[in-house]
Amino acid sequence: MSAQWFGQLEYRVPYADTDQMGVVYYANYLVYFERSRNELMRAMGLTYKELEQRQLGLPVVSAQIDYKTPARYDDVLTIRAELAWVRGVRLQVNCRVCRGDQLLATGHTVHAVIDLRSLRPTRVPDELLAMWSQAVPGADEAPAPIAAAGTADRHHPTTVHNA
Amino acid sequence: MSAQWFGQLEYRVPYADTDQMGVVYYANYLVYFERSRNELMRAMGLTYKELEQRQLGLPVVSAQIDYKTPARYDDVLTIRAELAWVRGVRLQVNCRVCRGDQLLATGHTVHAVIDLRSLRPTRVPDELLAMWSQAVPGADEAPAPIAAAGTADRHHPTTVHNA
Amino acid sequence: MSAQWFGQLEYRVPYADTDQMGVVYYANYLVYFERSRNELMRAMGLTYKELEQRQLGLPVVSAQIDYKTPARYDDVLTIRAELAWVRGVRLQVNCRVCRGDQLLATGHTVHAVIDLRSLRPTRVPDELLAMWSQAVPGADEAPAPIAAAGTADRHHPTTVHNA
Amino acid sequence: MSAQWFGQLEYRVPYADTDQMGVVYYANYLVYFERSRNELMRAMGLTYKELEQRQLGLPVVSAQIDYKTPARYDDVLTIRAELAWVRGVRLQVNCRVCRGDQLLATGHTVHAVIDLRSLRPTRVPDELLAMWSQAVPGADEAPAPIAAAGTADRHHPTTVHNA
Repeated sequence: MSAQWFGQLEYRVPYADTDQMGVVYYANYLVYFERSRNELMRAMGLTYKELEQRQLGLPVVSAQIDYKTPARYDDVLTIRAELAWVRGVRLQVNCRVCRGDQLLATGHTVHAVIDLRSLRPTRVPDELLAMWSQAVPGADEAPAPIAAAGTADRHHPTTVHNA
Repeated sequence: MSAQWFGQLEYRVPYADTDQMGVVYYANYLVYFERSRNELMRAMGLTYKELEQRQLGLPVVSAQIDYKTPARYDDVLTIRAELAWVRGVRLQVNCRVCRGDQLLATGHTVHAVIDLRSLRPTRVPDELLAMWSQAVPGADEAPAPIAAAGTADRHHPTTVHNA
Repeated sequence: MSAQWFGQLEYRVPYADTDQMGVVYYANYLVYFERSRNELMRAMGLTYKELEQRQLGLPVVSAQIDYKTPARYDDVLTIRAELAWVRGVRLQVNCRVCRGDQLLATGHTVHAVIDLRSLRPTRVPDELLAMWSQAVPGADEAPAPIAAAGTADRHHPTTVHNA
Repeated sequence: MSAQWFGQLEYRVPYADTDQMGVVYYANYLVYFERSRNELMRAMGLTYKELEQRQLGLPVVSAQIDYKTPARYDDVLTIRAELAWVRGVRLQVNCRVCRGDQLLATGHTVHAVIDLRSLRPTRVPDELLAMWSQAVPGADEAPAPIAAAGTADRHHPTTVHNA
């Protein structure tokens, strides 16, 4: 597998991210997720900026976050994103936020693949699909089964296809 | 039922909330949810500020959002929050964001009830529980069944108890 | 004078705007200023959204803020903007943030008038200049002196011209 | 001089920081300034977090920004802060934001030194003043003249004293 299967960055929490409870305000984790998705895209071989230049966008369709332990001012966080699956016009990215060994938050976002000119869903171009497919964890070990879209587990897919 | 069962506000989207895709950036919906929760608390009879003065806090344990149609600059949004359930040391608030008749996003947050001095979970005081229980939709029509905490549907509870 | 000479809104401070010092984080005042500028534009007869539809934009060239007393969570703020001057390809808006009678912050922003297609400065169209000129405080009482651009006080102009 | 006289960081712009004009929203530069101040404090030998643990705070009294060229999504910015002066109960930090060799924005913030228990201004403790004084550019080359507070140029001081 040539592409790296995760994106990661170190991030130091500014005062701006805190609230009066003395911890990072909960909405900021979605920004952290985005920062790690940007690095995931870069690691997979085509940045989100380059994707936009190809008139493709990945707006968020849904997001979910579990908050375990609060992040605090001046913490250095490690934020990591992985491609969970890509299929047809959608893909999912899993993210987690750590402080050293400690897991602070996990979550995921589901994205539609859209054409930025029409703002309508569009299938992932074959070239990109091939590139991204390699980045799904386990993709190089267990070959993706041929599955019809209708029968695939929508919520816990572990394979990549373009049904 | 004396307490109002929802909190609501009108909110005009500033340029600050948009991103270069020309729509509201996805993390801002969690701020919108918070704004409506503040109004829900006010409607239920005790503001979040007053709650903090009683040394109680409601940090977010998890959050979920479904994005249906993007909000845009200068839109006037209607943001509404309802108390879905309250039980023991947790409660859930459901939120939705509309532009006129159009539903733009829905989601919910689950909160722990904590003591701000110890930062540890604490049962909702009886007085508050009585106040909040009235605000769960349907609470005045269908009397809450007596349910053991262990048997209640964790994800779709419609009743209020303090098991 | 038909146009109203200020824009104003009431704004309730969410938890999101606070930091761990327990007050509104300083960068948020620039968002507050923007909210009041939006209302100023609306009051003057053409919203910023409509301005963009005419391919005109008003990016900020400089900003200045004096912080006097901190705003806090759940405060209802009154944010007001006035057009200080408009001249050629620039204009200045003065803003202030109050909590009831108490002045919390003042400041101003200077904006370039640009063509959104070329992203280059462009003179304010005559129609807009006439509309906006009426909104400069005192414009209807004291007729603007004929002044050459070079001699006008750049920092404390009270008149509107298109030199 | 043992202390480093500036704080600096590299920062990659997320989508979150952009607005629908396709550039970084203007309020975010104040967050960028804060990030560089945090690094300045660290470089000077005592982080802002440690300062707070000593019950000292540095709330912003005023801020000023000049925007020269817009920053964009995915840019890697270099943000730098220097201590301009420190005197009695106030200090000023100068900041600038660059993209490679290109200067995008400059500005400064003036801070009060306060006691976090009383929230009232307090003189900089001698130990800190000694530490910070070394960090003012030129402090080690040109010894600070003995100046009465009343005669010092309030706006363009280049020296450090505790009048």
